[in-house]
Amino acid sequence: MNEVLNFDELLKLAEDKSFRKLRDILKDLNEADIALFFEELPTELIVKVFRTLPKDIAADVFSNLDGDIQKVIITTITDREIKDIIDDLFVDDAVDMLEELPANVVKKVLKSANSETRKLINQFLQYPENSTGSIMTAEFVDLKKNMTVKDAISHIRKTGEDSETIYTCYVTDKSRILEGIVTVKELLLAADDILIDDIMRCDVITASTTDDQELTAKNMMKYDFISMPVVDGENRLVGIVTVDDIMDVMEEETTEDIEKMAAILPTDKDYFHTGVFSTFKARIPWLMLLMISATFTGSIISSFEAKLTVLPALIAFIPMLMDTGGNSGSQASVTVIRAISLGDIEFKDIFKVIWKEVRVALCCAVSLAAVNAIKLWFVDYLIFKNFDAKMQLYEIAVVCLTLFFTVLVAKIVGCSLPILAKKIGFDPAVMASPLITTIVDALSLFIYFSIAVMLIPGI
Amino acid sequence: MNEVLNFDELLKLAEDKSFRKLRDILKDLNEADIALFFEELPTELIVKVFRTLPKDIAADVFSNLDGDIQKVIITTITDREIKDIIDDLFVDDAVDMLEELPANVVKKVLKSANSETRKLINQFLQYPENSTGSIMTAEFVDLKKNMTVKDAISHIRKTGEDSETIYTCYVTDKSRILEGIVTVKELLLAADDILIDDIMRCDVITASTTDDQELTAKNMMKYDFISMPVVDGENRLVGIVTVDDIMDVMEEETTEDIEKMAAILPTDKDYFHTGVFSTFKARIPWLMLLMISATFTGSIISSFEAKLTVLPALIAFIPMLMDTGGNSGSQASVTVIRAISLGDIEFKDIFKVIWKEVRVALCCAVSLAAVNAIKLWFVDYLIFKNFDAKMQLYEIAVVCLTLFFTVLVAKIVGCSLPILAKKIGFDPAVMASPLITTIVDALSLFIYFSIAVMLIPGI
Repeated sequence: MNEVLNFDELLKLAEDKSFRKLRDILKDLNEADIALFFEELPTELIVKVFRTLPKDIAADVFSNLDGDIQKVIITTITDREIKDIIDDLFVDDAVDMLEELPANVVKKVLKSANSETRKLINQFLQYPENSTGSIMTAEFVDLKKNMTVKDAISHIRKTGEDSETIYTCYVTDKSRILEGIVTVKELLLAADDILIDDIMRCDVITASTTDDQELTAKNMMKYDFISMPVVDGENRLVGIVTVDDIMDVMEEETTEDIEKMAAILPTDKDYFHTGVFSTFKARIPWLMLLMISATFTGSIISSFEAKLTVLPALIAFIPMLMDTGGNSGSQASVTVIRAISLGDIEFKDIFKVIWKEVRVALCCAVSLAAVNAIKLWFVDYLIFKNFDAKMQLYEIAVVCLTLFFTVLVAKIVGCSLPILAKKIGFDPAVMASPLITTIVDALSLFIYFSIAVMLIPGI
Repeated sequence: MNEVLNFDELLKLAEDKSFRKLRDILKDLNEADIALFFEELPTELIVKVFRTLPKDIAADVFSNLDGDIQKVIITTITDREIKDIIDDLFVDDAVDMLEELPANVVKKVLKSANSETRKLINQFLQYPENSTGSIMTAEFVDLKKNMTVKDAISHIRKTGEDSETIYTCYVTDKSRILEGIVTVKELLLAADDILIDDIMRCDVITASTTDDQELTAKNMMKYDFISMPVVDGENRLVGIVTVDDIMDVMEEETTEDIEKMAAILPTDKDYFHTGVFSTFKARIPWLMLLMISATFTGSIISSFEAKLTVLPALIAFIPMLMDTGGNSGSQASVTVIRAISLGDIEFKDIFKVIWKEVRVALCCAVSLAAVNAIKLWFVDYLIFKNFDAKMQLYEIAVVCLTLFFTVLVAKIVGCSLPILAKKIGFDPAVMASPLITTIVDALSLFIYFSIAVMLIPGI
């Protein structure tokens, strides 16, 4: 299924009010695709089209819809219709939706739900953002250990309809303490009269409601789970996290890391749903901080200003030296940040990392300096013959030596700062390109001018 | 399960050769954790400990091991032992392992496998890297549409043991053409005597063996699938992709994107498994290219060099202007690159994106220029009184105006280049920080000197 879906025909049916025809086509589409179609609809048609959907898929489509469209629907339809949807949604999807709605609408929705759903939703709404509790769902299959395989399968057949995933079943005791798990695969492969107690696994890997969702995502990936039980402080089973929600978490966390690496405060909405002012607010703090830091780099230039007049040609190399230093440093820092987040690098590896980066830096530094020397010598001196030969030799020596030391320093700073940041409890992602660039800029200019003063007579 | 596993005790048992005790502890651990334990073992103990593992978990542990450790094991154990492992591995795991091994070892392994496994492995080894074929597995449950639900369940019970996932079953005709799918949930919830034909879904969303693995990952995420059927050119079912492999693909693709954004050529091994020379080769091309490009920025300075002698203080602002421009540009480019990769921005949105970035840029530019003006005026002029007042006013005007236009230009360049790159078939990730910084550096210096020449008399 690679063709891009074309909604033009469906859109025309909706505009022509041929809702019956539209319904016949929609009911055969996947819910995720129907949800995409709603994004193309003009606002005034959204509720009309939503009402044409067959009852059994309406809630599924609804949970796939964008927050803005959910809001349009929920504020327009009747309390009766809200009740049908909300009772049909999985609790995690209902909570996701409510978190985006204004308080008065939330009240209206909760009023419509049945009391059991309302209680669950209220409980779920209280888990902190980014906690495992906030992404779990309450619908799972619950078995007892004295059931036989046959009992268990018929229990699943009776109650499975309401469960988000039936493939891992959870065995709990009377006070809802989790005792073990058994997969449907194991049930199907076992004989009918065997007791659950005999086939369940007791060494269950669980998450806690207060665990960071990223940790739970990593554990599910590590163990290749399609769902994971979530327990409260007393080891009582309160919900499960399913792999589809974990994939969303991974995507969110990746976006957050990438934003941090680009000196942006993380936002939790997609590009066009973040307003201009919110985008501004996410970007200005780092821009401001880095701008102010960069003025220190400027003061290094000021302090050497008088000396620069002896060889003003040196000024022209400033951008190249700063950029190369910045790029070398950010290559190292970004590589290390990613390796930390994948669990490949820990604090104890710091010297191993520095040693590797030093060797890589030496290779890079020698290559870059060599190319620069050749370029300066052949192109500028031999071909254009436009400089004082002796001064030119000094220039080449200063530029190439600076390049060499800058790359070396940049790689060392770039690889070690993220590890140190992690160690003292900061997010390593903050130590990415922009901050490293600012630090390396100052260092590279300092190295540049110091070498110039040392080598060139009369400076 | 949040505690970090501590392998010291297990390590001591291995070193003391108490393999029986070790085996008793290991057999209760999760395979993924046992695999982690192997990473702590000294090389000479790896095969000894591996041989103590119970037969039924040996292959599972093996598939979780790091490539280097797999290699140690496979080159040491007997052909008989290899056969046991290879016939027990899922085809995709076997192929992953073989791709890392030297040719002579692959030959040895294939010789040991049974002929059916060998044929499958050879077929799978031929799918191109990053194709869906290269990550699929051949073990799935295959039903016929004239079976009843009862037949189907008993078929699963008989053949399910060998299948990587049994939760989605695939209905095929005699020539292996995929006709429909039915989930185990649907089977369990249906009455025994219903025909598969009556409950299967025919509008199956499939991947093709040649599809890019990233596309398949995105589709599985979109539809919340835990497995997806893979068909060949004639719509014959050849394998399935499972969600655990998709999560690995997502992680790989994210690493690749992040590397590209940091001007590194993607590598496919983790940090410590990439040699110094490979790391150097991945980093030097962009460093070299960007260094050479930055010399053009230098030539802008050279061409204004004579004029700079009138107000040498202007040189000190170069780093601040370049850095702020670069950071503003990379914020915009990285945001847009991520939004493109999540499918939020397409080419048709380019003017919408530019319009948003222009407004954000105006807010940022005004704030940054204002802070700079205040800083220059109050701190440098009023407090230190260390400059010629008239020259100082010119300086403030030039610096703040440059800041304003640079941020504006940087955001526009930063947001539009990734979209244009995507349009002409390049990877947008390449248009991230380093390249944008180099472009914006040149632009900002050009703006700076042009404004200086326009405003300051005598330049």
